[in-house]
Amino acid sequence: MIDMTPDEIAQMFDDAMIGRLCMADTDGTPYSIPLPFCWANGALYLRLPLTGRKGEVLSRNDRVCFQVDAFTGSLDDYASALVEGRLVEVTSIDEKAAVKVANDAKYERLRGGSRPGHGRSTPLTALPMRKILVTQLSGKKKEPTPAAV
Amino acid sequence: MIDMTPDEIAQMFDDAMIGRLCMADTDGTPYSIPLPFCWANGALYLRLPLTGRKGEVLSRNDRVCFQVDAFTGSLDDYASALVEGRLVEVTSIDEKAAVKVANDAKYERLRGGSRPGHGRSTPLTALPMRKILVTQLSGKKKEPTPAAV
Repeated sequence: MIDMTPDEIAQMFDDAMIGRLCMADTDGTPYSIPLPFCWANGALYLRLPLTGRKGEVLSRNDRVCFQVDAFTGSLDDYASALVEGRLVEVTSIDEKAAVKVANDAKYERLRGGSRPGHGRSTPLTALPMRKILVTQLSGKKKEPTPAAV
Repeated sequence: MIDMTPDEIAQMFDDAMIGRLCMADTDGTPYSIPLPFCWANGALYLRLPLTGRKGEVLSRNDRVCFQVDAFTGSLDDYASALVEGRLVEVTSIDEKAAVKVANDAKYERLRGGSRPGHGRSTPLTALPMRKILVTQLSGKKKEPTPAAV
């Protein structure tokens, strides 16, 4: 495995529909859920109401990581990146609005079209947006394989 | 989201190339890596040498979870399952041999063919196999969507 560049990681984030938010409860129990996400301005944004088990764990420990990977069906090529940091609430309406535009553009592109009306009913003030304040960003990918002879 | 049955979860595990092992360091920092895996006899098996950061974290805390998901390209349908428990080393040669057969069959099926010579050079005694002793198995999937009119 070799290190990915920040540009390669950002490209993978732009192309990935889903990543996995990982958290740790205070008794040492890890927990993980898959989520869509938006990488913007050096932070990782999530639509994340603090409900259920994730809400309980995150209320006790805001240290998280978010893992994104890409691999071929043959597993001959693969890459994985990890964002680490603390999860904080986004309260700025301007920041929410900018991220919502970026997020909608990402998923319209990935899905090959917009889905009118989907997810647009929540006013920004009520949108439960959170972001990871990144303390570490890392990624590894498989070394190129020499062509078979 | 509705709960998945154990059979639905096992089916998803049989069809998934990759899942993500999540762990938690003693200072509350979560960590996660993607791995191929084999679900057999009610345990989740991994080829996992305790090297690098994962080895350090796991030596301090053997509580782990393993997350597997499946989703369509449109994100209109999705499911996620979580195995929780403690990670232990597999030392029985018989158990290693049986899991290796199941694992090879899984990945030959998923890849659409065998890859002669790949990963076969490690004798079973040296194969770094570990399993999660499952304390909790859970899965959720999206409710069926009524057909659009």
